[in-house]
Amino acid sequence: MHSIAYYQEVISAHFSSLQIDKQPNNLYEPIRYILALGGKRMRPVLTLMAAEIFNAECSKALSAATAVEVFHNFSLIHDDIMDDAPLRRGNPTVHEKWNINTGILSGDAMLILAYQYFENYEPKVFKELAQLFSKTALEVCEGQQYDVDFETRNDVSILEYLKMIEYKTAVLVGAAMKMGAIVAETSEENANLIYDFGLNLGIAFQLQDDYLDAFGDPKTFGKQVGGDIIENKKTFLYLKAMEFATPTEKEQLLHLFSIQPQDNADKIKLVKDIFVTSGASLATQEAIKDFTFEAFKTLEKMNITSDKNELLRAFGENLMGRNV
Amino acid sequence: MHSIAYYQEVISAHFSSLQIDKQPNNLYEPIRYILALGGKRMRPVLTLMAAEIFNAECSKALSAATAVEVFHNFSLIHDDIMDDAPLRRGNPTVHEKWNINTGILSGDAMLILAYQYFENYEPKVFKELAQLFSKTALEVCEGQQYDVDFETRNDVSILEYLKMIEYKTAVLVGAAMKMGAIVAETSEENANLIYDFGLNLGIAFQLQDDYLDAFGDPKTFGKQVGGDIIENKKTFLYLKAMEFATPTEKEQLLHLFSIQPQDNADKIKLVKDIFVTSGASLATQEAIKDFTFEAFKTLEKMNITSDKNELLRAFGENLMGRNV
Repeated sequence: MHSIAYYQEVISAHFSSLQIDKQPNNLYEPIRYILALGGKRMRPVLTLMAAEIFNAECSKALSAATAVEVFHNFSLIHDDIMDDAPLRRGNPTVHEKWNINTGILSGDAMLILAYQYFENYEPKVFKELAQLFSKTALEVCEGQQYDVDFETRNDVSILEYLKMIEYKTAVLVGAAMKMGAIVAETSEENANLIYDFGLNLGIAFQLQDDYLDAFGDPKTFGKQVGGDIIENKKTFLYLKAMEFATPTEKEQLLHLFSIQPQDNADKIKLVKDIFVTSGASLATQEAIKDFTFEAFKTLEKMNITSDKNELLRAFGENLMGRNV
Repeated sequence: MHSIAYYQEVISAHFSSLQIDKQPNNLYEPIRYILALGGKRMRPVLTLMAAEIFNAECSKALSAATAVEVFHNFSLIHDDIMDDAPLRRGNPTVHEKWNINTGILSGDAMLILAYQYFENYEPKVFKELAQLFSKTALEVCEGQQYDVDFETRNDVSILEYLKMIEYKTAVLVGAAMKMGAIVAETSEENANLIYDFGLNLGIAFQLQDDYLDAFGDPKTFGKQVGGDIIENKKTFLYLKAMEFATPTEKEQLLHLFSIQPQDNADKIKLVKDIFVTSGASLATQEAIKDFTFEAFKTLEKMNITSDKNELLRAFGENLMGRNV
């Protein structure tokens, strides 16, 4: 087995040399632009790793890994339009740099390009990959729609919220790993187990993102700490607080999540206090542990050697060990 | 062989009974809405017809036909956003009835759904269909981008214009027919010939649309006659007129295509006069005949019985015999 750093190097080199030099330029330039912005490229790395876990050479999984990353970037372009986001990875978003129409059309082309990368596999593997990909891509759209719907709803349950982050974020992590398994032509059981591993880790990761958005260290957390609170986002922390809080705290929280003050420092402090005193903060940390543990449990069931088991566990621990 | 009317009936019944009753509602309701608006559904009809031409039961081609029509409607939703179009088939467009974000996301979901309809075929056929579909879908995006680019260019050549309408419109007609051939598992040669038939007929059809937009009978032409002239659209007629016109006419035409008067009656009359006197009108009619003839020529090369040859020719003649 190779190290995570090795897979990252392979993916990085691959995307640097990726040729998308088609015409018309106005369609393909935004695609080259967003792919060049880089990012962690965690998903394609997982595809390569999963392939090697199941005894395939990781180069065999490179096309599937490319499809996953191209799809992920398609979803970023379209989500950024919907969220009216000005920046992506510190650079102007596609619709800001060009315009909304360019963002729509270049995104569409990326979704199609993603499917084309599977064409490097023979029909049976191609169909398995494309089928998993379509199911996953549709779930990502559904997750995005739930996220939009939740903005204007006041009765979102914890279960609904978990389903939303599962669809919007976690299924693609699971699918990225399962694609490696499919390319390696391992057993269906192994493929489903590695999917579950990725899925649960993906949920844990997103919950941790919610947690760090409020309680992360500004020095190490990539985004603005308190961003979700400023935007009145009903995250896991908020929903848990609304579940646990006293009537007075609840009323206070409802008020705080209805205002948009000039200076947010007081609001952020008050909200975080309620997150702590209500027990929402602790409950979120517990949930993160639960989903991480659930991910590790599927590892035990997998028919792989202990060094591979260890690598997956180390990856999970590393991912979840982000500075809290 | 069945008649065109029969295929239309099959497709109409199929779309009436099509179940897309998934959640969330805000994602799938716009999809049900646009599919229920109907339209001529010419593309899926062609898929069924092509399957029977090559001796398959047309029911076998129904999933591929559905994919083609769902894709076509995806492209309408996203194009309508880009063109800021208020109406589609006499009803509010998706982004008008809901909003732009809904239009983007529902469109994305439709593009993925289209791929899923191919899953009813076994891996070899699935891959052939998905591969043709991806190539075609990407060309449609490229055609749409060329169309956008041409709006702000003054040096578009006739060849570039033909490539644009080929990509934006004709390739999907060719692909719809080739999919029927793929499902029927006929020879690659036959599959390519029926593609060329559809492609050339698609180009002829789009040129005729340009022609009728200026010279059609208001009673039978579905859209507003003169619409392209009002919008200063550089159609085949315009490009040919700019090629053939005298310096004076050219200057006049450039002026007319730079203004947007309150009352368009005079402008439409003057432009049409130049289209006629310059010979652009005649050249367009010639081009329509050329591409139709080209389509019919591929029929001769096809290894099918004369009654099937006759049916395809009748379809082409019927399509091109729209009231000029």
